[in-house]
Amino acid sequence: MITRSSIGRCALAAFLIVVPGLAGLQAGQQADSNAVSAANHTFDQALSARDILAMEKVWATESDVIAIHPGSKALIVGWDGVRKSWEETFDRFSEISVSMKDPQIRISSNVAWVVGVEVVQGKRKNGDPVTFNAFTTNMYEKRDGRWLMVLHSALRVPQ
Amino acid sequence: MITRSSIGRCALAAFLIVVPGLAGLQAGQQADSNAVSAANHTFDQALSARDILAMEKVWATESDVIAIHPGSKALIVGWDGVRKSWEETFDRFSEISVSMKDPQIRISSNVAWVVGVEVVQGKRKNGDPVTFNAFTTNMYEKRDGRWLMVLHSALRVPQ
Repeated sequence: MITRSSIGRCALAAFLIVVPGLAGLQAGQQADSNAVSAANHTFDQALSARDILAMEKVWATESDVIAIHPGSKALIVGWDGVRKSWEETFDRFSEISVSMKDPQIRISSNVAWVVGVEVVQGKRKNGDPVTFNAFTTNMYEKRDGRWLMVLHSALRVPQ
Repeated sequence: MITRSSIGRCALAAFLIVVPGLAGLQAGQQADSNAVSAANHTFDQALSARDILAMEKVWATESDVIAIHPGSKALIVGWDGVRKSWEETFDRFSEISVSMKDPQIRISSNVAWVVGVEVVQGKRKNGDPVTFNAFTTNMYEKRDGRWLMVLHSALRVPQ
């Protein structure tokens, strides 16, 4: 027989199952958002340090990753080419400092994208200072609990 | 007792379960890739037709979608702003023709990204011709079986 008290117990049971479930989901989303934000910060640090080994750890070092740099004339597809493009970038500068203003972070299942304006400041090897802003899209995929970069596109904000 | 014939039967059973499963997975991946390619083509058509209603059908019309255009000075976040930016674009041109060369399509679960060079040709309202190439990143999310745009970034390939 269905009584008020049995309905009440069922409602309480459902509440006790669903609410912590939702709270757990939210905590998981927040943890993912924090981890993506940290990965994006680690990328900026690797770039600012001109450290190819740190950069390598940021990326999914696979044949289908993609990079576009402010001076690119064509897409760079695959880790071998992307790695080379970072080495060339690091080789042209004696100093680089990069940080993203107001990053927009979006996450859907195991894919995250961070879009914002990178503020780039640096010095070429010949001493010339370089300062510009770049619209930047960074994409990450979660692999074995780690968010690894699969796309980086940075192109100058038009003057 | 485990006999050769029982191992053989088990192997055959596993083969009959796994191989059609893999074939089904591949067919699903191909179907998704075709659907994303079609969505990307529909986007180019909506843009080339300067048709805001066709453009609206391409997008996830939500508050967190993002657009960056070749003339943008800042990110455009949210469908209201993105819609307005398309209306302004359509209003500046009497003709636009856009198509993506060699699109790179990547899909991970319910997220797809298409990266390539858009060849843009058009005419401003004052008659001036416009021709340029733009590095373009288009992202889509699969919602109820439909791939909807959640990010569009198009920035001129540097001269």
